[in-house]
Amino acid sequence: MSWRATVLTLFPEMFPGSLGMSLAGRALERGDWSLEARQIRDFGTGRHRNVDDTPFGGGAGMVMRPDVVDAAIEAAMQGGDDRPLLYMTPRGRPLQQALVRDLASGPGAVILCGRYEGLDQRVIEARNMVEVSVGDYVLSGGEPAALVLLDACVRLLPGVMGASESGEEESFSPNGGGTLLEYPHYTRPAEWNGRRVPDVLLSGHHAEVARWRAAQSAAATQERRPDLWAKQTGFAAAAHAAHVEI
Amino acid sequence: MSWRATVLTLFPEMFPGSLGMSLAGRALERGDWSLEARQIRDFGTGRHRNVDDTPFGGGAGMVMRPDVVDAAIEAAMQGGDDRPLLYMTPRGRPLQQALVRDLASGPGAVILCGRYEGLDQRVIEARNMVEVSVGDYVLSGGEPAALVLLDACVRLLPGVMGASESGEEESFSPNGGGTLLEYPHYTRPAEWNGRRVPDVLLSGHHAEVARWRAAQSAAATQERRPDLWAKQTGFAAAAHAAHVEI
Repeated sequence: MSWRATVLTLFPEMFPGSLGMSLAGRALERGDWSLEARQIRDFGTGRHRNVDDTPFGGGAGMVMRPDVVDAAIEAAMQGGDDRPLLYMTPRGRPLQQALVRDLASGPGAVILCGRYEGLDQRVIEARNMVEVSVGDYVLSGGEPAALVLLDACVRLLPGVMGASESGEEESFSPNGGGTLLEYPHYTRPAEWNGRRVPDVLLSGHHAEVARWRAAQSAAATQERRPDLWAKQTGFAAAAHAAHVEI
Repeated sequence: MSWRATVLTLFPEMFPGSLGMSLAGRALERGDWSLEARQIRDFGTGRHRNVDDTPFGGGAGMVMRPDVVDAAIEAAMQGGDDRPLLYMTPRGRPLQQALVRDLASGPGAVILCGRYEGLDQRVIEARNMVEVSVGDYVLSGGEPAALVLLDACVRLLPGVMGASESGEEESFSPNGGGTLLEYPHYTRPAEWNGRRVPDVLLSGHHAEVARWRAAQSAAATQERRPDLWAKQTGFAAAAHAAHVEI
């Protein structure tokens, strides 16, 4: 069984979108994964198929109704569907590469995209949704976030990335025991606009190249992402402590 | 002059994609913003219009050539283009709502999307690119990240969001002096599947509703995002503890 994605949305026409092209698109054509976008409005109430209503307690914006969303989920996951149900929201757990790997190694995902102000809290709880945030910014809806999440997952599926696209030596992969930003890259021409490639990369000394790259990764992480660096050095300290105790 | 976005990509057909629909799409039709996707390959070298080459120092993957990318940028920004040049990369500065607001209040953005292993470091430096990351995960290329960044910016442009779509009371907006996750939402029906809306939201007491929501925001942020909470409260020690926790 290939990896299955189902997206619940008010804009099914946004899918596959960019996922129908390039790497993900070729994998979709080959059947390495499947994508189904379902219209939440089909489960709306009344003649106008309403999906939202004003918030209790007042305030701007509209809130998606729990009964409508629940019915859409029920229809999408009928039978023993063992895929996780994700809800894309800035209130969610920040998406990180470890979660991407977990999702990619599972059976697939059912992804609920909100629009309007948000989704009634009761259906989030009743359905035990995994709330996921792609970053600390506000989008017009969950759809662009779902595109990002699916893109990240699909590239990790077996057979999707060719050798030339690599995928091993990259930011946020476990590499040397931690999570660091990638080192800078250089390619031809060796001299461009008066700027030369660092000599060590032309030296042919594999060990020195590896040392230089590790140092560049560490320096970039320390400078640009002190938060990641703290995690990294926390892990290292813990690992060291554990080793010493044993 | 309306807000202008130019995307440099190997997959111009991925644009406008989801940005051509819903809120962003209507704004595009109205001319509240404009979007141009330019093919980097048009500036490739040789008969095959190559855009990449193997990395100096060895390793998997291909690296985008500095001369090719520089020529694509030159053509896109000729004349006195005062828009910032962004490069979407996991090595970049994390996209946050404050940066989204800065970009949305400016003249627009030129966004470079990488594919393959990365981009030659020299052109990043020569062009003084602003490296931006949408999150700590790896995508197949910069395109899904550009879709997210543009979606976040466009919704903030004047006239794009109607009153019904709100946009003021939301996560990551300056609200009560800080950055907190949003409170939970509830709408009709008041009772659903044995789950009732919290009484306070039905009370009609505006001050109590506001207090309840503020407390919910604070609690959610503290529990789910100790990193944001630490920023909010300013306890550097809490941030440190959150970051090294394993």
